[in-house]
Amino acid sequence: MFITDIIDKKRKAYSLTKEEIEFAVNGFIAGDVLPEQMSALLMAIVINGMNKKETFYLTKTMQNSGKTYTFSFDAVDKHSSGGVGDSTTLVLLPILSSLGIKVAKMSGKALGYTGGTIDKVSCFEGFNTDLTQKEFEQVISKVNGSIISQTEDIALADKKIYALRDKCACVESIPLIASSIMSKKLASGSNTILLDVKCGEGAFMKTKKDAIKLAKTMVEIGKLDGKDIVAFVTNMDSPLSFGVGCAQEVYSVINALKGESGDLLTLSKLLSAQLYSMANRVSINEAMFEVEKSLRSGLALKQLKNVVKAQGGDTAVIDDPDLLLRAKNKYEMTYDGSVGYIAKINALTIAKVQKLLQVKASEKDKKLCGLILKVKVGDIIKQGDVLATLYTFDKVDDGVKQLFMSAFTFSSRKPKNEKLLIKIIK
Amino acid sequence: MFITDIIDKKRKAYSLTKEEIEFAVNGFIAGDVLPEQMSALLMAIVINGMNKKETFYLTKTMQNSGKTYTFSFDAVDKHSSGGVGDSTTLVLLPILSSLGIKVAKMSGKALGYTGGTIDKVSCFEGFNTDLTQKEFEQVISKVNGSIISQTEDIALADKKIYALRDKCACVESIPLIASSIMSKKLASGSNTILLDVKCGEGAFMKTKKDAIKLAKTMVEIGKLDGKDIVAFVTNMDSPLSFGVGCAQEVYSVINALKGESGDLLTLSKLLSAQLYSMANRVSINEAMFEVEKSLRSGLALKQLKNVVKAQGGDTAVIDDPDLLLRAKNKYEMTYDGSVGYIAKINALTIAKVQKLLQVKASEKDKKLCGLILKVKVGDIIKQGDVLATLYTFDKVDDGVKQLFMSAFTFSSRKPKNEKLLIKIIK
Repeated sequence: MFITDIIDKKRKAYSLTKEEIEFAVNGFIAGDVLPEQMSALLMAIVINGMNKKETFYLTKTMQNSGKTYTFSFDAVDKHSSGGVGDSTTLVLLPILSSLGIKVAKMSGKALGYTGGTIDKVSCFEGFNTDLTQKEFEQVISKVNGSIISQTEDIALADKKIYALRDKCACVESIPLIASSIMSKKLASGSNTILLDVKCGEGAFMKTKKDAIKLAKTMVEIGKLDGKDIVAFVTNMDSPLSFGVGCAQEVYSVINALKGESGDLLTLSKLLSAQLYSMANRVSINEAMFEVEKSLRSGLALKQLKNVVKAQGGDTAVIDDPDLLLRAKNKYEMTYDGSVGYIAKINALTIAKVQKLLQVKASEKDKKLCGLILKVKVGDIIKQGDVLATLYTFDKVDDGVKQLFMSAFTFSSRKPKNEKLLIKIIK
Repeated sequence: MFITDIIDKKRKAYSLTKEEIEFAVNGFIAGDVLPEQMSALLMAIVINGMNKKETFYLTKTMQNSGKTYTFSFDAVDKHSSGGVGDSTTLVLLPILSSLGIKVAKMSGKALGYTGGTIDKVSCFEGFNTDLTQKEFEQVISKVNGSIISQTEDIALADKKIYALRDKCACVESIPLIASSIMSKKLASGSNTILLDVKCGEGAFMKTKKDAIKLAKTMVEIGKLDGKDIVAFVTNMDSPLSFGVGCAQEVYSVINALKGESGDLLTLSKLLSAQLYSMANRVSINEAMFEVEKSLRSGLALKQLKNVVKAQGGDTAVIDDPDLLLRAKNKYEMTYDGSVGYIAKINALTIAKVQKLLQVKASEKDKKLCGLILKVKVGDIIKQGDVLATLYTFDKVDDGVKQLFMSAFTFSSRKPKNEKLLIKIIK
């Protein structure tokens, strides 16, 4: 087998066999296939695509290039493709674990503009995300849920291929994105998987069409591997939670667990009910009833404390969430126009503002910088109303203020309600 | 400017600007653009193509990455895209130089299966093709023609890019092939250029459509650069000359200059007349009259001797061509079937046979190995007729014999005459 023949085949848009995909990927890891050959193959894949089977073979080859974990119990996993103010994991995990479902969350670091789950849990001082596989299992056995950093030994080929894609403008490709995500999911040991594919201004997938295609591709891969898998396609035009930034998002998580209504709570409940129904083979109605019960009884909030404690974290901020808002400077951003509606809040712009608020902070204070929105899409506002509070260790200059304001679209008419849950792919 | 943006643009099939092409190519030469980035860009070009302007910019950028030669006189150049038994240069050069036209031939080494012009002139013992630019000019001033090896300092980027294309299955692309050839032609100093784009079994371009497209692309590039340029698209299904292999082709060249009819002589006369008419601004009829005169008078043959002498070569083989057929073993291949026509002689298969005949020969004897066909397409043959004589230092085993025979297609009906000159692109 020659790599040039394989590249040539994909150049001409033919399908590759399992053996050809293994030859290319394993050869690349071994150094027999040169980076310039792999990047030519990747570009041919980006342009000419891959079918369902090819994408599955690529996923499995990348999965098998690293370690595959297994648990001595059944575990569930929820994965988001990444959005702004998306802290559903921290709401869902305590809900489900309070209901006896084991949630094994292996999470990556920062994706895109805002932090990942691993960055957010650093707000609980001392929270250890670098557990061994044995410790991970022990925590889950004890409190039904644990969050750890994705270990280095998972899907080794994916890391090397992703770095190459990034250098060679080969990131935007549904089969490559799907196989990258799924190679890690299949390796992480959960047999019940719920994917949350974000779609809109603040997500990698800008259009519903692309998001649905990605979701379908990932569900197909999971099913071919025998997993119980479902994908939600959800809206990510505006930030999901009021808080954006690690501390502010944890603040919103605590509020959501206490019943603060908003998109974060709504979506977390929907995701929790879906996973509960998959894990316990009950209807969504029954599942939703259990989810509501966990929240109303305060069990879910208490369970967050249990998980944080089990991983060595300080629960003080759960008891007193205002501790999370201790950044040196606070600025209220007020509205200066005539009475009207908030038509849009651009998630990507808000994420950029949050990033700018961190610039001058020390490494350990970065997590404290961010903002809390006081309004949401559809709200009526009048002059002098506060749009958000910004938290920073810096001054907030005119550039940041203008960028913040540019995230908003105001309208004299009531905006159309955007669906939060766009589609469920089974 | 970022290379990833340039790759991304071509991935989406947009046109690149002059500046973007220069950034990519010059960056690659300087090492700022990585091989894996250049190969991703090349694959995107192979799949999504390049328009006329982009192809011209790429050609000029590659030309300008090396030295561009100029002459103190007007010179003409003929370039073949490579075929089997294609020795037209060695017939055309003496014809034109005998008529006072200066032919400056910078030639590459072996292309594909059979030798290039540089390999063939090694049959004139002592012929020096490694002349300096000054010596090249001196020989041309003296005898109106010279053949040298393409110097290393020409189109440096083309060499590096070609090596990458070869490794990454990015060779088959008309804009890339056209710019590679033309970057060297534009750098070599002739203002009047005739391209001979070969098409068929024994050529890189297998179809007329591709060959015509390549020819048009190259003519466009030449014109955008202000050259007087024409391209012929000619048939390369069967070997062009009776002789295949360096010594056997020189043997055929000498015979052609003495008037032996066949495709080699026909095409050489057409090419010569075309260049004569371009250089002297006369009609093709007048040009053909001069070409015929040069051949009939023996001036062309005499001129071959002058050029060989001027470059230090021994002319003994011109006086006694049988010296060229001094390989140790000679085998006659005879026909063993019933009376019929020769319908096809596959050029690529004949080239492979010639290559096999060389295997056991010492480095200096390789040029003596080859074959001389005794028949041509359309000939009637009967049992016992000799198809060819093979010249080698080896035994001719059954494998070689069978391969040789597989080149022939016999038919009971007279085959359709294939056109030698398929199209002229001006």
